[in-house]
Amino acid sequence: MTSIAVVVGDGIGQEVIPVAQDVLSLLHPEYEFYPVEIGYGKWKKTGVACTPDDIVLLRDADAIIFGAVTTPPAADYRSVVLEIRKELDLYANLRPIKGDGVDIMIVRENTEGLYSGIEWQEDDRASTLRVITRKGSERIARAACRIARERGNHLTIGNKANVIKSDAFFRDICIKTAEEEGVPYTTAFIDALTLDVLMHPERYDVIVTTNIFGDILSDAAAYLVGGLGMLPSANIGDSHALFEPVHGSAPDIAGKGIANPVAAIRSAAMLLSHLGDIPGATLIEEAIRLTAEAGITTPDTGGKATTKEAGAAVIDAL
Amino acid sequence: MTSIAVVVGDGIGQEVIPVAQDVLSLLHPEYEFYPVEIGYGKWKKTGVACTPDDIVLLRDADAIIFGAVTTPPAADYRSVVLEIRKELDLYANLRPIKGDGVDIMIVRENTEGLYSGIEWQEDDRASTLRVITRKGSERIARAACRIARERGNHLTIGNKANVIKSDAFFRDICIKTAEEEGVPYTTAFIDALTLDVLMHPERYDVIVTTNIFGDILSDAAAYLVGGLGMLPSANIGDSHALFEPVHGSAPDIAGKGIANPVAAIRSAAMLLSHLGDIPGATLIEEAIRLTAEAGITTPDTGGKATTKEAGAAVIDAL
Ligand SMILES: CC(C)[C@H](C(=O)O)[C@@H](O)C(=O)O
Ligand SMILES: CC(C)[C@H](C(=O)O)[C@@H](O)C(=O)O
Repeated sequence: MTSIAVVVGDGIGQEVIPVAQDVLSLLHPEYEFYPVEIGYGKWKKTGVACTPDDIVLLRDADAIIFGAVTTPPAADYRSVVLEIRKELDLYANLRPIKGDGVDIMIVRENTEGLYSGIEWQEDDRASTLRVITRKGSERIARAACRIARERGNHLTIGNKANVIKSDAFFRDICIKTAEEEGVPYTTAFIDALTLDVLMHPERYDVIVTTNIFGDILSDAAAYLVGGLGMLPSANIGDSHALFEPVHGSAPDIAGKGIANPVAAIRSAAMLLSHLGDIPGATLIEEAIRLTAEAGITTPDTGGKATTKEAGAAVIDAL
Repeated sequence: MTSIAVVVGDGIGQEVIPVAQDVLSLLHPEYEFYPVEIGYGKWKKTGVACTPDDIVLLRDADAIIFGAVTTPPAADYRSVVLEIRKELDLYANLRPIKGDGVDIMIVRENTEGLYSGIEWQEDDRASTLRVITRKGSERIARAACRIARERGNHLTIGNKANVIKSDAFFRDICIKTAEEEGVPYTTAFIDALTLDVLMHPERYDVIVTTNIFGDILSDAAAYLVGGLGMLPSANIGDSHALFEPVHGSAPDIAGKGIANPVAAIRSAAMLLSHLGDIPGATLIEEAIRLTAEAGITTPDTGGKATTKEAGAAVIDAL
């Protein structure tokens, strides 16, 4: 029995994830779905955003579909997403950027670098240790090579090795892995790469890079496809996988029923293809295309549909 | 007597900087110019890219105009630009992004963060210490506030304080400084900010951020004005100032005489305004505008002019 943990989370997560779940259960009535309450809302009620029991529930699932959580600016509140990525060792963050003339897969290392959590503060300075491990670099490079090979294409290794030695370490491991895997590759400095992806997206296929660079690069590249509203992502480890829209909980539009469900539905498609149902994933993408062609889109992309209407249209198209 | 150190450097630096110097000496025949040989070319001849004597020559100048230097991928070659920024304590990297509907000044901290140079490697990992000091943050925040006030406008503090504690430290110091200086401000996460600058450039005026984030953000923002070809920058400290195009030495087009001299000429304009000749800087910008309107531009911006022709046209327009 395939079991899917459903975390609606906060804000518009609560509006878009039910649509994604509807799509999944339409294609796979045999899936078992179970909710896991996690997020700021829970924190306000109980003082904890995510308990050890919640982590156990997430571990038990074959896959997780995740909305978005609100992170308040309080100094002692550590992001729940980061905690889950770490606890489940979801080391590969896959962010496909797909649109007119653009088909790029950003493969972001998701567990280390500046996100090490090793940091301290003195009176006159604050320090964060950026840690790049051989194991962490090898496995993300391996994942990126596998994807590049599946796509029959090439790899770009984004780095800042001209300044940062830990990035030279990362780059060299990626080069070695690509050579072992027989994947054609180039390397590029992350600043110049960010600009070149914007100016010449057709030059890029799979891009692998370290944690924070992947974070910034994927948001920048979202510009090519009209912003974050449409973008899905996958957080993959060796034993667990979590799928979430790239957008956040969007408190400004939450509760209005106008959030774009496409990123969440696309995340469901990534979930299916991860579980081996590639035809199902293709069907979903096709249904999204037809719905957009029919002009049924939410206000962020120029339409007038509500979240429910846009979701229903995709489901009809299926 | 005002003295200007001229570093043509490598590649197209050798082609565009003489044009910038011609512009400066036309407006200020009283300036004394002296060349300082620095860069990869010098390294190939002498084994050193920049000597302590060169640093003394740079220190002696009232301002430095700098082309670009090539950094070979050799492990032991540390970037000369970084060395100069450090030696002369050029802590504020100003990168104006100006074009149709865009008028943003990026103020990048230029001496610390991931560029600390504090890094080490073990067999299974490489580490870089990201250091944010109170002094470093206060002075860059102060500089950004001064610019925002001159422009009669507001400040955006780019950070990743939701994940990185040293960025919370930076952000909080910037907030405190902006409040003391009476400059209106907002804060934004660097990933979302990079996207929003692309989607809504009209929302931004002065953006202050840490070293590597400023590096990536300014390249991304260059997309708004057609790439790096036109962008000048200033590296300013309390005692020294260096002006350079944002572009690099561009080995692929070096020697062909087709490099766009506009970024270098604009850097000269920034130099003048730093030395107090604001009318001179305005004249140069005006001359560049007229030349572009007359269609005299280099191939990178769709024209047919050579570096010399484009430079001569700007000089004629002056
Ligand atoms: C919310 C934040 C912690 C997160 C990150 O930095 O990874 C987000 O920006 C993302 O890209 O998923
Ligand atoms: C060449 C490199 C060291 C430099 C930097 O990272 O600062 C460059 O990218 C820049 O932006 O001036």
